[in-house]
Amino acid sequence: MKLVPLGDRVVLKQLIAEETTKSGIVIPGQSKEKPQQAEVIAVGPGGTVDGKEVQMNVSVGQKVIYSKYAGTTVEIDDEEYIIVKQDDILAIVE
Amino acid sequence: MKLVPLGDRVVLKQLIAEETTKSGIVIPGQSKEKPQQAEVIAVGPGGTVDGKEVQMNVSVGQKVIYSKYAGTTVEIDDEEYIIVKQDDILAIVE
Amino acid sequence: MKLVPLGDRVVLKQLIAEETTKSGIVIPGQSKEKPQQAEVIAVGPGGTVDGKEVQMNVSVGQKVIYSKYAGTTVEIDDEEYIIVKQDDILAIVE
Amino acid sequence: MKLVPLGDRVVLKQLIAEETTKSGIVIPGQSKEKPQQAEVIAVGPGGTVDGKEVQMNVSVGQKVIYSKYAGTTVEIDDEEYIIVKQDDILAIVE
Amino acid sequence: MKLVPLGDRVVLKQLIAEETTKSGIVIPGQSKEKPQQAEVIAVGPGGTVDGKEVQMNVSVGQKVIYSKYAGTTVEIDDEEYIIVKQDDILAIVE
Amino acid sequence: MKLVPLGDRVVLKQLIAEETTKSGIVIPGQSKEKPQQAEVIAVGPGGTVDGKEVQMNVSVGQKVIYSKYAGTTVEIDDEEYIIVKQDDILAIVE
Amino acid sequence: MKLVPLGDRVVLKQLIAEETTKSGIVIPGQSKEKPQQAEVIAVGPGGTVDGKEVQMNVSVGQKVIYSKYAGTTVEIDDEEYIIVKQDDILAIVE
Repeated sequence: MKLVPLGDRVVLKQLIAEETTKSGIVIPGQSKEKPQQAEVIAVGPGGTVDGKEVQMNVSVGQKVIYSKYAGTTVEIDDEEYIIVKQDDILAIVE
Repeated sequence: MKLVPLGDRVVLKQLIAEETTKSGIVIPGQSKEKPQQAEVIAVGPGGTVDGKEVQMNVSVGQKVIYSKYAGTTVEIDDEEYIIVKQDDILAIVE
Repeated sequence: MKLVPLGDRVVLKQLIAEETTKSGIVIPGQSKEKPQQAEVIAVGPGGTVDGKEVQMNVSVGQKVIYSKYAGTTVEIDDEEYIIVKQDDILAIVE
Repeated sequence: MKLVPLGDRVVLKQLIAEETTKSGIVIPGQSKEKPQQAEVIAVGPGGTVDGKEVQMNVSVGQKVIYSKYAGTTVEIDDEEYIIVKQDDILAIVE
Repeated sequence: MKLVPLGDRVVLKQLIAEETTKSGIVIPGQSKEKPQQAEVIAVGPGGTVDGKEVQMNVSVGQKVIYSKYAGTTVEIDDEEYIIVKQDDILAIVE
Repeated sequence: MKLVPLGDRVVLKQLIAEETTKSGIVIPGQSKEKPQQAEVIAVGPGGTVDGKEVQMNVSVGQKVIYSKYAGTTVEIDDEEYIIVKQDDILAIVE
Repeated sequence: MKLVPLGDRVVLKQLIAEETTKSGIVIPGQSKEKPQQAEVIAVGPGGTVDGKEVQMNVSVGQKVIYSKYAGTTVEIDDEEYIIVKQDDILAIVE
């Protein structure tokens, strides 16, 4: 199954921060809070949203910071996604 | 009886998630919470809504994710429907 | 007396659901909650409402679903009516 | 003294419902709640209100239904008036 | 000192209701509540306010009714004034 | 250091009311509440603010009345300033 | 890693006030509250934001005062940044 966002919506997948210990062991970062970084999974077509013309400025695969508490959490095929409006994306992480 | 939505309204029917056990028995998914997936039953004509031109981008039969708590629940002929504004539909599930 | 709604207002009369028992006796449905179905009694002229052009899309005699808690209840000649804005009407029941 | 409303304001005077008993005695209806019927006493000039063009659609002497809790109560020469915006008038009673 | 209001602001001075007893003695009306009548002391230039063109329709010396709780009370030279937006003035008293 | 306000922002410095006793001694007015009078220290360039064209109508050195609770208090070089939007300035005191 | 803000967003880094004691020792100012001064780290492209044309008026390296409680705190590479809308920047400190 695939999520196709409408209007100015963007589908995100939250990034799990990984930490490498000094000895080189990678520990998935579930204990460390880093809640707002995510990867762009799908981008809506933009166009007229609430009477205003919206151009989409993010693309699939980018890492982004999104606004805390924004968006709706959706579970598809046992994977959890967050659907936000593009305006809730604050910055791209390069 | 048939519901004909006005303006940018969309009539939805919530999907009951079914789960198949390993032995192949299908269990209707009432215990598992999956509240936001629904099928599009009827789509309003769009047009000028609250002074803004709205184009409808969903069609009957599509599976969609809609915003939690959005919409009004209506019971017609012992069937329960949800009427939402198109803007409360976040994504199409393909 | 007659109610002539202004602007995008619509006068509704709530429908009392009737239930027919198997033996054919009709019981007025006061115990069963079906609060949002109503008949259109009068329709405002539309036009410019709050600076926006509104076209009226409902007509007298139609059965409609209206938004819960919307509107103002008015009693005229011992009959109770609800006056709503057209935007509070979600769908027509055909 | 006379109240000259500004913009889209309308001056109303609440109607006291009178009840005639079977024996023909008229009892001023203070105990019966009928709070939203009023007579139009004065109508503002309309024009640009909050950046929007407003046309006045009620006239002096009409009986109207106005929105519960809307408006400001004013006492002039021991008479009580209600000043509402035209948009708080829901319907004309004919 | 003089208050020169900006934009669509209007400077008001609340009127103290005077009562004349039958014997002709004038009693300043501090006990009687008549809080919304005021005299216009100064009128702003209007013009573009919050992106909207505002034309001023009240003039110095007029008696007006203003919206309860609206405005800011200011004390200049031991006199108390109320500064309101013109839209908070409901009617002129003639 | 110098504060250069952006957009329709204005930098104010609150005025400390001074009182001269009958014997001519000047007492800085800390006990008397006069919180809304201030001097204009710097004025933003105006221009397009939130999609609306704003023209600045106050100038440095003017005494103004500003809306209670409006603005942000900032401390620069041990001096306290208030930054408000021009719309929070109600009147100029001349 | 680098934060590239979208639309009218601006990335800020809060300034730690330093205090020099009379004997010349510099003490990082963690005890003194000066929360709203920050340096501009990155500036979004502006353009159409929420249907309105926004021009960016701050540049990287400027010291600014921003609105208390505004913005979202983000941690990248163990450095803490604040992402605000340009409208939350009140003034430039020169």
